[in-house]
Amino acid sequence: MALRQNQLLHHLWKQTWVARTRNTTSRIMRPDDANIVGNVHGGTILKMIEEAGCIIGTRHCNTQNGDRCVAALARVERTDFLHPMFIGEVAHVSAEITYTSKHSVEVQVNVLSENIVTGAKKLTNKATLWYVPLSLQNVAKIIEVPPIEYSSPEQEEAGKKRYEAQKFERIETKERNGEIIMSVSIPEPYSVAFSQSSLIHLVGPSDCTLHGFVHGGVTMKLMDEVAGIVAARHCKTNIVTASVDAINFHRKIKKGCVITVSGRMTFTSNKSMEIEVFVDADPLVEAEKGKYRAVTAFFTYISLDKENKPLSVPPLKLEGEEEQKRFEEGKARYLQNKTKRLADKGHQQ
Amino acid sequence: MALRQNQLLHHLWKQTWVARTRNTTSRIMRPDDANIVGNVHGGTILKMIEEAGCIIGTRHCNTQNGDRCVAALARVERTDFLHPMFIGEVAHVSAEITYTSKHSVEVQVNVLSENIVTGAKKLTNKATLWYVPLSLQNVAKIIEVPPIEYSSPEQEEAGKKRYEAQKFERIETKERNGEIIMSVSIPEPYSVAFSQSSLIHLVGPSDCTLHGFVHGGVTMKLMDEVAGIVAARHCKTNIVTASVDAINFHRKIKKGCVITVSGRMTFTSNKSMEIEVFVDADPLVEAEKGKYRAVTAFFTYISLDKENKPLSVPPLKLEGEEEQKRFEEGKARYLQNKTKRLADKGHQQ
Amino acid sequence: MALRQNQLLHHLWKQTWVARTRNTTSRIMRPDDANIVGNVHGGTILKMIEEAGCIIGTRHCNTQNGDRCVAALARVERTDFLHPMFIGEVAHVSAEITYTSKHSVEVQVNVLSENIVTGAKKLTNKATLWYVPLSLQNVAKIIEVPPIEYSSPEQEEAGKKRYEAQKFERIETKERNGEIIMSVSIPEPYSVAFSQSSLIHLVGPSDCTLHGFVHGGVTMKLMDEVAGIVAARHCKTNIVTASVDAINFHRKIKKGCVITVSGRMTFTSNKSMEIEVFVDADPLVEAEKGKYRAVTAFFTYISLDKENKPLSVPPLKLEGEEEQKRFEEGKARYLQNKTKRLADKGHQQ
Repeated sequence: MALRQNQLLHHLWKQTWVARTRNTTSRIMRPDDANIVGNVHGGTILKMIEEAGCIIGTRHCNTQNGDRCVAALARVERTDFLHPMFIGEVAHVSAEITYTSKHSVEVQVNVLSENIVTGAKKLTNKATLWYVPLSLQNVAKIIEVPPIEYSSPEQEEAGKKRYEAQKFERIETKERNGEIIMSVSIPEPYSVAFSQSSLIHLVGPSDCTLHGFVHGGVTMKLMDEVAGIVAARHCKTNIVTASVDAINFHRKIKKGCVITVSGRMTFTSNKSMEIEVFVDADPLVEAEKGKYRAVTAFFTYISLDKENKPLSVPPLKLEGEEEQKRFEEGKARYLQNKTKRLADKGHQQ
Repeated sequence: MALRQNQLLHHLWKQTWVARTRNTTSRIMRPDDANIVGNVHGGTILKMIEEAGCIIGTRHCNTQNGDRCVAALARVERTDFLHPMFIGEVAHVSAEITYTSKHSVEVQVNVLSENIVTGAKKLTNKATLWYVPLSLQNVAKIIEVPPIEYSSPEQEEAGKKRYEAQKFERIETKERNGEIIMSVSIPEPYSVAFSQSSLIHLVGPSDCTLHGFVHGGVTMKLMDEVAGIVAARHCKTNIVTASVDAINFHRKIKKGCVITVSGRMTFTSNKSMEIEVFVDADPLVEAEKGKYRAVTAFFTYISLDKENKPLSVPPLKLEGEEEQKRFEEGKARYLQNKTKRLADKGHQQ
Repeated sequence: MALRQNQLLHHLWKQTWVARTRNTTSRIMRPDDANIVGNVHGGTILKMIEEAGCIIGTRHCNTQNGDRCVAALARVERTDFLHPMFIGEVAHVSAEITYTSKHSVEVQVNVLSENIVTGAKKLTNKATLWYVPLSLQNVAKIIEVPPIEYSSPEQEEAGKKRYEAQKFERIETKERNGEIIMSVSIPEPYSVAFSQSSLIHLVGPSDCTLHGFVHGGVTMKLMDEVAGIVAARHCKTNIVTASVDAINFHRKIKKGCVITVSGRMTFTSNKSMEIEVFVDADPLVEAEKGKYRAVTAFFTYISLDKENKPLSVPPLKLEGEEEQKRFEEGKARYLQNKTKRLADKGHQQ
């Protein structure tokens, strides 16, 4: 088996760029592509595979007259990650069109890792992707795919079998997917629960200082992102940050932590929304330490129309005493800031 | 020659900023910095503000003998966003040290937006940040801050008042924060609920094709990110993607949507974990359309030791019939793939 | 209040830069900006240089009535990397307009690295860039450039000479470009084919100007990435960019294009490697337009040991007349630069 792998490797290597329906790309793996011990994320590799597939699929489907199109991913076949890849290695992604039906394109993608210092090369992935060309004029229209030439009738026959098999499975999953019931009760519009949101972020090297602790600015950017989603979910319009209350950074967050950033609406005035944001850090690997609250803050958002003029905000529907209490506290902050703003204005005049 | 080079350096240095305690940074705002209608995210601006503060604070605290240090953000005072900023404008961020106590530095940051095409300029933010210098040798050690010179005793006095006020407020919030009880019941380790995770992502321009729909690869990367966090939470070791089952992309996801990616563990074998991942899309602004399931998939992860050899995985603790059923289905997929792998190996030999 | 706000704005504006035609930008270097041993990529620096040039060029060309425009990079003069830069250092990029012809702007950019922990500062780059203002209404239209004031007639005369020299060279390169053919072969270590590399990149919105054309800096960063892979494959050590020969940007690259960046080694001296890099643009969806060569350049790399001292480079193994010819041409460029460097040194002493 080792021999066969090497032969395949050598063969792939030779094929680097030959024909129209083939394409190769290389990229050095950077710290942000990998986890804390240097293993490249599977997701980074999947993204490169798909980009290579999209490029070759789009190019092929535009080699004819008629509507211009972009190849949209319809399906990825089961993909194995044969070897880990590391920071500093070069990933070589080569894509080839292996079958075309009337409305779809099969792309075979191989990924090699190359350690450019030792010269070691490994086949890390073989993936099969199916694309469908969607017209740029009308995205609902699937255009016809120009046929490719096969080296033998057997090759075409094998492709056809793969096509039929995946088509059958896609239809099956579509039905199966329908069955899945989302286990979340749907909250009432304009309630706190309706717009409540949270995100998780794995702290990468580029988020950190020389000590290996998260930059305050990185945390604030994530907090604003969550607050913005809460605000947009509430009023369904274009929203922008109007102000941020004082934020205290009591506890540091280390590289490799997972941070959960959660936001909930606490108060609405006529033209503004206040969102409370919490940041919790979870030092995954040092389990004994446990999750802890690292930062909290209040963000104020406003809603803008097309001329960037403030719009009215739908009032927050409160449920229970807790939410009522938080609303009152938010109102107090709102009035305090308003008074302060007017006082500042007075001073300046 | 050395002399001339030094003179040039000194000259350039003088040009770069007027005084030691001032610094300015400029950057063009790009599509990824803004929302779908072109307003720059508040979070982008907060991040730039903090980077400017960190540079000037770190520089100042290292202008003395003794331990080298990095300035860590301790607090941001209330910040207003006075005007929206747009894609293509240049943000000018200027930072100045305005007060120093024994162990902290106050930095005042101003942000101007400049439309380099029309020449229009606006003051968009004034922010005050407090930094604390942490030793690079021992991150728990706060080093002493060299004092700055004030233009007048009144200026120093005003700074001292701001310092006392924020110190008082920080202590207050610390106590208040302690009260907040995390409303989540803590699940038992190794249960499905314990490692279950989800993230939200606002679809930006760089995530999309020319049609304005999310690239399949972007979705897969986020799915792998969530699956990896689930796996790491379960076994608290270094984990890597081993394989991804076939994924079907039934429904497109449009620019401006919020996507929620959720993962839960379904099955563990001796040396692998299977994680089911769901992608739900929420077209925020087109509310009538509602949230819909866009993609689902199964990811298999393995746990590696320092020599990249597979480790044993703690078995999943099941609760209820649903979890039991999903486990059995996962086991069937696992055995099927194992059989297939052995068969492929046989073919090759 | 409006008056006070304007006064503050004016005051801040004055602080921000000394003159209208000057601009400075600072940024902390992060892990993703650097290679695995912490040396900042030459491409990262080239991208920052170009952003600074684009800001100041666009600002200047819009200080008049008539069409609004964006400054498009037409040419970068030969650039030397005088010192390596490291993760955690701050790069200060200052740009100044030094000459204007009727339709082009010369921008001089200096890059300083500052270690904010030790206080050490170094001049790392001096670059000269030429920009051409393209109308936002009609991208094929080059608008007139408002003249700058010179401190002396000699200064203006020197600028005019630089302008004439680069104009002549641009026309010359335009002709040279047509000849180049990419070759494919099986790799023997230290041969040209062994280290030859290419990458493809799908141009996204954040890569582009307001016109929807790729920023010159984005292209240069990709070129440096490929050149770096070629150099690392050849000598299997830590390598850094030493210089970039003059680059001419003959043809624009549009959003949605795929760009293929290919590099091959042309020449090795005792301690340096010269890599030729080609950029080809493929407007995927406009297939009839066909792929075209957009940019070519020569990068020089050196290999460093752990103390950042230059190492010997394995000599390039040449195959065939073509490679022999390119090697001779590379040698001529190498000797010419060496002579020029010695002459400059002589002048300064």
